[in-house]
Amino acid sequence: MTSPSGALAPAFAFSQAERDALYRAIETRRDVRSQFLPDPLDPALLRRLLDAAHHAPSVGFMQPWNFVVIQDRQVKADLRAAFARANDEAREMFPEERRELYGSIKLQGLTEAPVVLVITCDHTRGGKVVLGRTHNPDTDLYSTACAAQNLALAARAEGVGVGWVSIFREAELRAILRLPDHVTPVACLCLGHVAELYTEPELQARGWRSRLALEDLIFQDRWPEEA
Amino acid sequence: MTSPSGALAPAFAFSQAERDALYRAIETRRDVRSQFLPDPLDPALLRRLLDAAHHAPSVGFMQPWNFVVIQDRQVKADLRAAFARANDEAREMFPEERRELYGSIKLQGLTEAPVVLVITCDHTRGGKVVLGRTHNPDTDLYSTACAAQNLALAARAEGVGVGWVSIFREAELRAILRLPDHVTPVACLCLGHVAELYTEPELQARGWRSRLALEDLIFQDRWPEEA
Repeated sequence: MTSPSGALAPAFAFSQAERDALYRAIETRRDVRSQFLPDPLDPALLRRLLDAAHHAPSVGFMQPWNFVVIQDRQVKADLRAAFARANDEAREMFPEERRELYGSIKLQGLTEAPVVLVITCDHTRGGKVVLGRTHNPDTDLYSTACAAQNLALAARAEGVGVGWVSIFREAELRAILRLPDHVTPVACLCLGHVAELYTEPELQARGWRSRLALEDLIFQDRWPEEA
Repeated sequence: MTSPSGALAPAFAFSQAERDALYRAIETRRDVRSQFLPDPLDPALLRRLLDAAHHAPSVGFMQPWNFVVIQDRQVKADLRAAFARANDEAREMFPEERRELYGSIKLQGLTEAPVVLVITCDHTRGGKVVLGRTHNPDTDLYSTACAAQNLALAARAEGVGVGWVSIFREAELRAILRLPDHVTPVACLCLGHVAELYTEPELQARGWRSRLALEDLIFQDRWPEEA
């Protein structure tokens, strides 16, 4: 293909060692709630993580994300309190026989993590009509989630744990962060160095839920009639 | 921290070479539309990519994804035709002065790519109440987007290009794939080996939109009053 205005360069597969490193990040990444060390995050390291997030794919190259880097103790405490209110509600939604286990699982590290990062999605970024978002307005949210995953993998390689906290009443999260209406909070991430990680997902280790068999999740050509 | 039922293991930062490999995957990954080679994807390679996706984080470990692996020519042709119908509509949504450039940019490789992969989100996976999804039902969609990003990075390391196609009328995409109502198509990905990749995002190379300055996207503690 000719390239009128951009440069194409050879794109070979990575070496086996490089591929192994990537797969190791993917396979050993864990959602962290309890293993955060109090050591501060070096600003240059944090910048590398944010730059990794910023290199996520985005529909129409709209780059809808912002990064709210929270180090203020009061904001963290407000988030912690908002989580606690929502989590009390959440626990009551489960069948009675699961509530004790639910209550025993730590689901956030908002005040222990040296940095809390909220990645947001600005639905107005790139103007009223965005290439690739014309038929599915949620694609900007998907792009923002991809940014969170880039960051999680870079963090694993840097020895930094990431814990994604989802249990908030959205109105409270918006009020604490003063988010305008056109901005959606997508990922609230606790970040901090870790010396240890679970060797399997913590929810599996704790008996909450197990990894599904990949082969059961793969279909050929179309959704099967019997599924 | 004690670990009653799961194993904790030391979690050091990766070596510099390993970190470099991960950042290289993140920085050189491109959305591919035109560079696909016709070579088939080895089933073992495709399986590694799907396994990478399956190791994405998911809210409550619900693993809401399925992987519809499309190799049938007719299904690909149906997707290509559905894209064309939607893309004609999309072009008309842009201001007149951008339509020629829009029309000149190839936005899919559905029939050239040896595999088209649709990653879906099953909103019923894990039951009626899912840990961490109690207050934000969209978290399962975010998990599914994270799976797509894991796959995109693994693909880059394997020398496989990925092109995410978003321009479909959702009802047509659902009909072609026979998706039930409780399943949302999140990512339609063209996959194939590539010998060359753009050195910058193609939309930037083509003058559509440029990368934003990271520092402008970072806020401290809260959304700023003036933003």
